[in-house]
Amino acid sequence: MPPRLDALLDPLHAADIADLLEQIGPNQRRDLLALWKGGVDGDILSELDESLREEVIEGLSPGELALAVQDLETDDVVDLVEDLDAEGQAEVLAALPAADRIAVEKALAYPEDSAGRLMQSEVVRAPSHWTVGDAIDFLRSGITLPDQFYHVVLVDPRLKPVGYVTLGRILSSRRDVRLRDITEDSFRTFHVEDDQGDVARAFERYHLISAPVVDDDDRLVGVVTIDDAMTVLDEEHEEDILRLAGVGEGALSDPVLATARQRIPWLIVNLGTAGLSALVISRFAGTIQALVALAVLMPIVASMGGNAGTQSLTVAVRALATRDLTRSNAWRVIRREALVGLLNGVALAAFLGLATMLLFGSVDLGAVIAVALVVNLLVASLAGTFIPLVLERLGVDPALASGTFVTTMTDVTGFFVFLGLATVVLL
Amino acid sequence: MPPRLDALLDPLHAADIADLLEQIGPNQRRDLLALWKGGVDGDILSELDESLREEVIEGLSPGELALAVQDLETDDVVDLVEDLDAEGQAEVLAALPAADRIAVEKALAYPEDSAGRLMQSEVVRAPSHWTVGDAIDFLRSGITLPDQFYHVVLVDPRLKPVGYVTLGRILSSRRDVRLRDITEDSFRTFHVEDDQGDVARAFERYHLISAPVVDDDDRLVGVVTIDDAMTVLDEEHEEDILRLAGVGEGALSDPVLATARQRIPWLIVNLGTAGLSALVISRFAGTIQALVALAVLMPIVASMGGNAGTQSLTVAVRALATRDLTRSNAWRVIRREALVGLLNGVALAAFLGLATMLLFGSVDLGAVIAVALVVNLLVASLAGTFIPLVLERLGVDPALASGTFVTTMTDVTGFFVFLGLATVVLL
Repeated sequence: MPPRLDALLDPLHAADIADLLEQIGPNQRRDLLALWKGGVDGDILSELDESLREEVIEGLSPGELALAVQDLETDDVVDLVEDLDAEGQAEVLAALPAADRIAVEKALAYPEDSAGRLMQSEVVRAPSHWTVGDAIDFLRSGITLPDQFYHVVLVDPRLKPVGYVTLGRILSSRRDVRLRDITEDSFRTFHVEDDQGDVARAFERYHLISAPVVDDDDRLVGVVTIDDAMTVLDEEHEEDILRLAGVGEGALSDPVLATARQRIPWLIVNLGTAGLSALVISRFAGTIQALVALAVLMPIVASMGGNAGTQSLTVAVRALATRDLTRSNAWRVIRREALVGLLNGVALAAFLGLATMLLFGSVDLGAVIAVALVVNLLVASLAGTFIPLVLERLGVDPALASGTFVTTMTDVTGFFVFLGLATVVLL
Repeated sequence: MPPRLDALLDPLHAADIADLLEQIGPNQRRDLLALWKGGVDGDILSELDESLREEVIEGLSPGELALAVQDLETDDVVDLVEDLDAEGQAEVLAALPAADRIAVEKALAYPEDSAGRLMQSEVVRAPSHWTVGDAIDFLRSGITLPDQFYHVVLVDPRLKPVGYVTLGRILSSRRDVRLRDITEDSFRTFHVEDDQGDVARAFERYHLISAPVVDDDDRLVGVVTIDDAMTVLDEEHEEDILRLAGVGEGALSDPVLATARQRIPWLIVNLGTAGLSALVISRFAGTIQALVALAVLMPIVASMGGNAGTQSLTVAVRALATRDLTRSNAWRVIRREALVGLLNGVALAAFLGLATMLLFGSVDLGAVIAVALVVNLLVASLAGTFIPLVLERLGVDPALASGTFVTTMTDVTGFFVFLGLATVVLL
């Protein structure tokens, strides 16, 4: 069987094999790996979801693991081991050649999510006084070059990066041209402790392909490339979209129990906030008893507020992530959202008020629900924008908690204003 | 004043200037542009949000516009004009040199969101029999090269791409090495009509830097580079996150009225579905009248279902976007989500049921709300996974409509099961 398995799997890209392993069930996966574990290489391990990675690594013998990781660049090894438990980490590190192990350990000493962990330490650099000919001779001299590189980084005698030259420019220039005369405007450096998300967004914003990373002494210690930045951006997007929905980190291949545990925290919070709404409603039990139509209509006011709040919230969270919403335009955006909430509130309230009047035969009831809807949509827009801004200012990820806060706000406001007004006007 | 303005703005990157224009208000923007419109170049126009781009282009004279766009690569011009109205498009096209105009018109003839619109038509290609020396001599011969390129694409005599070589490999190889002997494994081509989103995800999945694009005859017509793929991915993420929240396309710099109009469609839909919930509740008016505690508790059941449904929904929409959820594992995922919903439903129902018994002094009421909660969380998980899968199968973007569908489902189920059970058990 194994030879036939090899014939099927060998032509596939590592990403596709990782995908296959993620899509089949745990039993099939165990069987497949038992038959084929000799085929698992570092690229496949790199592509696997974290949860599976640990499982697969545990199934490999130290020798197989050493063989699998030896061809990886150090930044890929760092990415591979940083989320493993201590035991798995030690196992992979022990499998590396000494020089690589030191590079990986150095990278792991930088803070999580820092540029230092993202960069590759293999950099092609040249003294800034070199010519194109010097660079070409150096590149041809048989030194070990990174798998992928796009620039030659120029450094001063203290190893501070002072510019970079694209390989295309080197190839198309005469040998006597000085490198410092053909550097690119796009050049910018990052610090080892810069946040990976900030680095990735700078790549997108300024259309960078690679960028040197420096340490506290401004010395060149590595280079971040665009493919790594792209992966970071994708992870940040995933985090934003899942956090907004109150879902913890996880993958489709996680076991049921682990997934249930990831999801329950925000459900518990929501149970608490729903209890708050129930408390508000219970204060008006007498009013509802007297006019049961209120119980029929009150979820409409709450739901519309929740919907409008989620709209404002999502726009604000996204704009904060892309840095389109900043301290300098926060008030303008809040004002704008309030106006949008007010406009849509008035338009929808006119319709809902009229429909209520006709269906329930009560002008007063129609007026009450219309006013409650306008108030709630205004509150929703304000809360949807204001709460993520406050969380951001407090250093909390605005996507993390805003959803529950905003719908609590709109539920409580919706029930309170509608039932309160009804108590005053209708009883 | 203008000289001082120039001194302030000139050192900024085009992306930062575009950002500044987006962050200030419409009046300030008009004033700033009146003083400084000579400084607006093609790069700044490219970076601007679509809504502002039109405004700024309208403010430029044909001569100023021609000057602004003449230095752009054709793919940037395509990106610049494809969303302009016919008048604005004609104005920019007229400002281009004839050769560029033809290339742009050709790209615009490809379908929207196709690789043909994303690619740049400037490609560095070489016959597949060339050596490294041939390639270097060709690149040094003074031909016009694209601003950025990372590979030399090898073509056969009929212009079909057969491989590519990185510039790093060319630079580090001897002159007599044949290009076909140092090609990269990562090589893959796209068709001009391939969807941009699919192309961008392939870039991320297979760690591509650039990829040739071919026409129906398999001839090389252009190349897509990773920075463009990164922009496409970011736009897709934005679309997903905003659509899930029922927000139409738009930017923070859009006028209030336009934003209100973008947001109201889903609010209207939500009004309709909230009406449906109200209809369900109204059927149980008698029950509520008899036991007003039901009105107090019913929003809890609905809100918990909405929350759990949003969790499943978001995970499913994200997994569909990343192609982690496919036809082949759909049933496994549905089963998994159902189990997760059931598990969390039972855990939360035990707590909520007990709390209700104690607070309201009724074992029956506690049992009713517990059962209703379990049913609703199960329905929520199933609907949250199933609805996006169905929409995807129907060719509709699953992020577009699922949110409202799912919460309607959980609201209606929550109210119906809770009030229905209460009617049967408690009255």
